[in-house]
Amino acid sequence: MVIMAGGSGTRFWPASRNARPKQFLPISGRQSMLAETFARLEGLVPAERVLVVTAAHQAQQVRECLPQLPAENLLAEPMARNTAPCVAWAAHEIARRNPDALQAVLPADHVIEPVEAFQRTILAAAKAAKEVDALYTLGVEPTFPATGYGYIEAGDAFGQMDGIDVLGVKRFVEKPKLERAQEFLQQGGFYWNAGIFVWSSKAILAAIETHVPALIQGLARLDAGEAIESVYPELPSEPIDTAVLEKAGNVRVLPVSYSWNDVGSWAALPDVHAADSDENYRVLSEGAKLIAHDSKGCVAYAEGERVLALIGVENLVVVQAGNATLVCPRERAQDVKLIVERLKKDGPEFL
Amino acid sequence: MVIMAGGSGTRFWPASRNARPKQFLPISGRQSMLAETFARLEGLVPAERVLVVTAAHQAQQVRECLPQLPAENLLAEPMARNTAPCVAWAAHEIARRNPDALQAVLPADHVIEPVEAFQRTILAAAKAAKEVDALYTLGVEPTFPATGYGYIEAGDAFGQMDGIDVLGVKRFVEKPKLERAQEFLQQGGFYWNAGIFVWSSKAILAAIETHVPALIQGLARLDAGEAIESVYPELPSEPIDTAVLEKAGNVRVLPVSYSWNDVGSWAALPDVHAADSDENYRVLSEGAKLIAHDSKGCVAYAEGERVLALIGVENLVVVQAGNATLVCPRERAQDVKLIVERLKKDGPEFL
Repeated sequence: MVIMAGGSGTRFWPASRNARPKQFLPISGRQSMLAETFARLEGLVPAERVLVVTAAHQAQQVRECLPQLPAENLLAEPMARNTAPCVAWAAHEIARRNPDALQAVLPADHVIEPVEAFQRTILAAAKAAKEVDALYTLGVEPTFPATGYGYIEAGDAFGQMDGIDVLGVKRFVEKPKLERAQEFLQQGGFYWNAGIFVWSSKAILAAIETHVPALIQGLARLDAGEAIESVYPELPSEPIDTAVLEKAGNVRVLPVSYSWNDVGSWAALPDVHAADSDENYRVLSEGAKLIAHDSKGCVAYAEGERVLALIGVENLVVVQAGNATLVCPRERAQDVKLIVERLKKDGPEFL
Repeated sequence: MVIMAGGSGTRFWPASRNARPKQFLPISGRQSMLAETFARLEGLVPAERVLVVTAAHQAQQVRECLPQLPAENLLAEPMARNTAPCVAWAAHEIARRNPDALQAVLPADHVIEPVEAFQRTILAAAKAAKEVDALYTLGVEPTFPATGYGYIEAGDAFGQMDGIDVLGVKRFVEKPKLERAQEFLQQGGFYWNAGIFVWSSKAILAAIETHVPALIQGLARLDAGEAIESVYPELPSEPIDTAVLEKAGNVRVLPVSYSWNDVGSWAALPDVHAADSDENYRVLSEGAKLIAHDSKGCVAYAEGERVLALIGVENLVVVQAGNATLVCPRERAQDVKLIVERLKKDGPEFL
């Protein structure tokens, strides 16, 4: 199992900061998204068989989040180089330990429920990968015409595994406009690309060798004793999707129908949290308190021994984290990036 | 000069707290309202002739706000007993030091501008008090039909002092409904009761003797050597207005037309602050920052090294102070008291 925990998102500012991106936040519950992702694997594989790839400057936070993770299972990237080097390094490392191992690659900052359904699909994909050594992705059945997700258009059926279809992949589709997303939904056969992959080290390394040979050549220098610090900066910085999966001929998709959400902004919290009795969505750390008077539909986030008091407001995002406070309507949550841009120039101490 | 600084207001929660009421906040500028009130007397009287009456538990804060105040000029009330005991104690103390002194009594938490006009009216009232030993109040010419202020209905004219009318007082009027306030404005002869008084110690002590003799009897025990701690709890707890002024026959009012505001809630900030270039009203302590994107008409208050980020909101009050954040529309600012009530029950650590 490979958990990719190197993200540096700013869409959850001010809770997410340079030093503490989304995967370390308790966005979806009481513990960090990374810890929830790890917990989601319980019973599937032991901690000894989970690798976490993260940024070197976040390594200590990963250790604190996941005290049960063996030290040698933490791969610290000297710098962010997008997901292709991350996936390749993890596959290279797993192959070094066990050349025949299968692996699942999982983002650290998604919400997936229920756990049982998730584990069932990972097991099915693994079984399929044992039978046919291809590159498997999980495609989430769309429940609405999402414009914030990439899609996978499925092709021919290759049969079923444990009751789940195994389909070919016609193509990967970038985040569509609403009209196209509606067509996808109506037409069927289009799935959200959840960024969850299952494959053998051999299969993914072979595909990388074909499509991004520089990656494999770079990683070979590790075997020759070179340090990751000198190798990594020279690896091509690309997403695994566009660098490999969109080009490979042996990609398959397993449609899954559990609840999946990449929680892309504060506005997504109502999708992954039940409303409280006042119809607000609260994410409060231990000791934090919300007092909502005549207020509803608000996303309220507070950390530490703090109180948020709302009077007569609706559908606002109100976040109190560290030295910053954010107030915006839910539908403007994506504009948090504009604040982050402003602060880069004239308030880096708040990032 | 007597500055009454014993208030315990909660209408500026979360900036105002039990331990730090409004007079200690920089509501109207860079320094506390108390310090501004003190500064407003500069050139009128030396610091040696300013008494500050405050609650014992706020005495240290007063000393920090007003380092120039002589130690013996701070009267610390063992408990709040409303304004009549406060005024009586101050008059008693001034009479003890100088039996013939005049005094002005000023609340510590009002905004008055310009200073020159204020000083001119205090001097005029003092001159009038020297000529005729009555109880003088300043009545602010209303500029709109305010329902949040008490009014003074003026009576016969007693001539002028330094170009300012000296009028008799027909009656004091409680905060009126809008319709009556409109009548007052139309009819003329009604003034806002600013709670600013000028009189000789003799005149006010005589009036108290007549209308609240228990106060004078209590204060006499101080002269017999009894401690304020044992005297004060037994003094009648009443406002000076209703206990004495509304009953006394020798009250006069000087109409004044400077800008006066008791800054009764967060909603009053736009009345005492100029808008910034984004049309927001900001009160930020040193190191605090506001980033307003596509937001206007907001009252933004922050203390310390903090940033408030607003996106796409209008006419909100957003306050970040200590361990609490408040968000409400400007027109709901008076409902802060409901939050304070809730916290008394289930969050006293936030008060």
